[in-house]
Amino acid sequence: MAGERLITREEAVLRIDANSLDQLLHPTIDRSQSQEVIARGLPASPGAAVGEVVFSAEQAESRAKGGAKVILVRMETSPEDIVGMHASEGILTAKGGMTSHAAVVARGMGKSCVSGCGAISINQEQGVMRIGEHLIREGDPLTIDGSTGEVMLGLAATVVPELGGAFTELMKWTDRMRSLKIRTNADTPQDAIVARRFGAEGIGLCRTEHMFFEPGRILAVREMILASDSHSRENALAKLLPMQRGDFEGIFRAMDGLPVTIRLLDPPLHEFLPQSDDDIRAVADALGASVGEIRHKLEELHEFNPMLGHRGCRLGITYPEIYAMQVRAITEAAYRVASDGVKVNPEIMIPFVSHERELAQLRTLSEKVIADVAREAGGTRIRPMIGTMIEIPRAALTADEIARHADFFSFGTNDLTQMAYALSRDDAGSFLPQYVDGGLIDADPFVSIDEDGVGQLVRLGVERGRRTRPNLKLGVCGEHGGDPASVRFFAEIGLDYVSCSPYRIPLARLAAAQAAISNRRKAAREGVE
Amino acid sequence: MAGERLITREEAVLRIDANSLDQLLHPTIDRSQSQEVIARGLPASPGAAVGEVVFSAEQAESRAKGGAKVILVRMETSPEDIVGMHASEGILTAKGGMTSHAAVVARGMGKSCVSGCGAISINQEQGVMRIGEHLIREGDPLTIDGSTGEVMLGLAATVVPELGGAFTELMKWTDRMRSLKIRTNADTPQDAIVARRFGAEGIGLCRTEHMFFEPGRILAVREMILASDSHSRENALAKLLPMQRGDFEGIFRAMDGLPVTIRLLDPPLHEFLPQSDDDIRAVADALGASVGEIRHKLEELHEFNPMLGHRGCRLGITYPEIYAMQVRAITEAAYRVASDGVKVNPEIMIPFVSHERELAQLRTLSEKVIADVAREAGGTRIRPMIGTMIEIPRAALTADEIARHADFFSFGTNDLTQMAYALSRDDAGSFLPQYVDGGLIDADPFVSIDEDGVGQLVRLGVERGRRTRPNLKLGVCGEHGGDPASVRFFAEIGLDYVSCSPYRIPLARLAAAQAAISNRRKAAREGVE
Repeated sequence: MAGERLITREEAVLRIDANSLDQLLHPTIDRSQSQEVIARGLPASPGAAVGEVVFSAEQAESRAKGGAKVILVRMETSPEDIVGMHASEGILTAKGGMTSHAAVVARGMGKSCVSGCGAISINQEQGVMRIGEHLIREGDPLTIDGSTGEVMLGLAATVVPELGGAFTELMKWTDRMRSLKIRTNADTPQDAIVARRFGAEGIGLCRTEHMFFEPGRILAVREMILASDSHSRENALAKLLPMQRGDFEGIFRAMDGLPVTIRLLDPPLHEFLPQSDDDIRAVADALGASVGEIRHKLEELHEFNPMLGHRGCRLGITYPEIYAMQVRAITEAAYRVASDGVKVNPEIMIPFVSHERELAQLRTLSEKVIADVAREAGGTRIRPMIGTMIEIPRAALTADEIARHADFFSFGTNDLTQMAYALSRDDAGSFLPQYVDGGLIDADPFVSIDEDGVGQLVRLGVERGRRTRPNLKLGVCGEHGGDPASVRFFAEIGLDYVSCSPYRIPLARLAAAQAAISNRRKAAREGVE
Repeated sequence: MAGERLITREEAVLRIDANSLDQLLHPTIDRSQSQEVIARGLPASPGAAVGEVVFSAEQAESRAKGGAKVILVRMETSPEDIVGMHASEGILTAKGGMTSHAAVVARGMGKSCVSGCGAISINQEQGVMRIGEHLIREGDPLTIDGSTGEVMLGLAATVVPELGGAFTELMKWTDRMRSLKIRTNADTPQDAIVARRFGAEGIGLCRTEHMFFEPGRILAVREMILASDSHSRENALAKLLPMQRGDFEGIFRAMDGLPVTIRLLDPPLHEFLPQSDDDIRAVADALGASVGEIRHKLEELHEFNPMLGHRGCRLGITYPEIYAMQVRAITEAAYRVASDGVKVNPEIMIPFVSHERELAQLRTLSEKVIADVAREAGGTRIRPMIGTMIEIPRAALTADEIARHADFFSFGTNDLTQMAYALSRDDAGSFLPQYVDGGLIDADPFVSIDEDGVGQLVRLGVERGRRTRPNLKLGVCGEHGGDPASVRFFAEIGLDYVSCSPYRIPLARLAAAQAAISNRRKAAREGVE
């Protein structure tokens, strides 16, 4: 209609439902053919997927290498499953909500996911699962629809949507209308390339720990964790340095001058250690350690509430050599890429800051490493920005103090919601659905930001941060960056950018444009009155 | 000197160091005799204790019954150890910080405690522990000093301080100078009596879950948790009702008209289930359930971050029959006691509220039960106050909305600190000492309230709560209520009362008087200028 000038381009952009746009970007099930739905879970990541059932990440990988399409079925997923998730068409879990590990990672990968499907009972050892009366074996065909949460027997026919010139044209209009920049969460050059195709204007969150889980690296990571002093820790870190540097080089090249925000190590160290008896034995053998030593370390690192534990910049304070290695890898990668004539724009992000002194201390450490690398490299100086995540309520409340040491803030609204609302993403499934259904809360606060509560902290952080440093760059990295309602809120309170999963970039571009139009019209109305 | 009119009474009160007063209330080690210190832990609860070593709560109980004085030594304590802790002279733990379960409970009981004594290595099965080169068997004599954190071989001589008329006189002066009321945290009539002797003006926190752990009750609690529908849950709750009613009757009689704030069930249900294989089997036998059923329940209730889990009023929303039973027990107890001519002043406190609608719904539920009991009882109407804890950052931020449904707020500053600062009390020991030593933070925020961050939330809650309801009663229940620096802060921002462990009441009375004098002098100075 806009093409025929029946409505203005603004009207055209306003009329599109951002959420329905998401469905358009993924394959759907051909509903002209009937298919029996045997169970329902949560529609955790949109799109239909068909394939053979596998019950482990290893099986997913090996069958996918043989050319098979697979659906990975798990009780729940953990970071060790990442490679297997990449190899799968879709993921189905028995436990976990819309923001469980499986759901978040699947959305980031653009893979279909049905989570929290309680009807599934998996017998891992026998390689079977039961759904009601159906017994499904490894290798059996299965279909999942991550847009509806449906699970179906057999291989359903799917339809791949065509995104023609009209879509591209529309997206161009939105870009001219919005001022909020759209970045992406990406941990690999491949993700970065996909994201740029969808229109990403930078990377807002590159998680370095995902790199630590790759086979061929995890052993060095574990050696580092088991190290009993900083000298042997540095030896293990020296093995990781060239790998991390290589990762960053690839990402810088893919982003070609666009800003890249790299978050230093965030999760608690116990997440990297093996848990099962077999794995513990294998790691002990590989590292020349005893099973007892590893068990002792596991016990020592055990936490009752790891969400509130020894993680983020607290690791950087306790083990400065880890952050020093990462800053070195980032800076060296930047110099190498720049020497090939590629532009680089790195931003070092220090996570989980609760007190300005943490950031002050780690900024000093980082600047020293950056100066060392600059001296070694010579030539043009590269000055990475240094900033922090605002993801702890106290950080938002003391943003004026923290801003003294930060070139940018990135609001980590997932964790901020967990702490401000006292909700654990991994556990909330036991009561949150009842809360939403019963009208106790209007929406899952992990999907759309809770403007009244968590949003207040973001607003406070913005105001107080800019009061100290008017040119502070402000963004959001968190699932909310890809939620249209939240994007509108972030645009309204004056953030510079949001960052989201590659597959949600078109939605975010549209929502940002819609917010800009609404704000402009509102301002115009108020001007008239 | 005040007696001789050399200084004013105000000067006398101001000159006393509140923290040193605490030492005065507990036995100390006779330092004229030398004693070898074999290890050091944290000074978690003041006073010296001597006795025979035991390694389990059961042993503590049975040996104490036989007349022995015992020191309970554990890796860490849990709610199931409460009875054994009561039976002990002092508690020594290998793990846990100043606000671990052992430390908090010991302070509440006025028992000596040394926590986080990493030098200890316990072999529970063999009934021995190793401290450096020393092998200590069950029954061996040991001394701990909870004021210094020292652990000594043998039985040291101790000195019991005399609190004469001067102490009583001083305390009377402070009471006339302060406006902040001092309540106590007490869960039993015995605690309430001790607290009144120290000058408590009410109970600010009576935790109902401690009653659930008593032998003879825990089985009914477990039956309630394992119930598969609300009908069988109600049957189990009916067994608990008379027991809880009896508890409250005793407490109301002991407090004789002073206000008693009773917190409805707070911890996640899995805390009440058995953990070890033996215990699981015993409970299965006792309940006529299968081991598999209990294991399944344990798995179902498992939480990654129980601090942020299915607890507090979330239980009241999911299982309204639990809160209904508790409100009924409180109200029935109030009527019974009143019919004996004893005055009662109950305050029902709903914990862990994050959204006003939770409180609105549970207030309606409570009012219905109260009306039912009133109808059954006839006679004079008793109207318990209904209020909430403000312990989740979102609750402080939306206090204006929550106050619509609350007669009082009690700031739960322990949990508020955990969430606002992203610190788990049980886990922070791995890095918090380094933070304090390295000057990254000024003080352990679980000991003295973090005025800049967590304190902002309390301030906001006070302002916004009173904006909606000017006569809102405002207090603090949390360890900070017994910390002199924190008490001064709470007096300054205009709270009505603080609540603390019985043994810390004299400190709180003194600190409140000191705060009142300082505030008055400051106001006078400002008036002059």
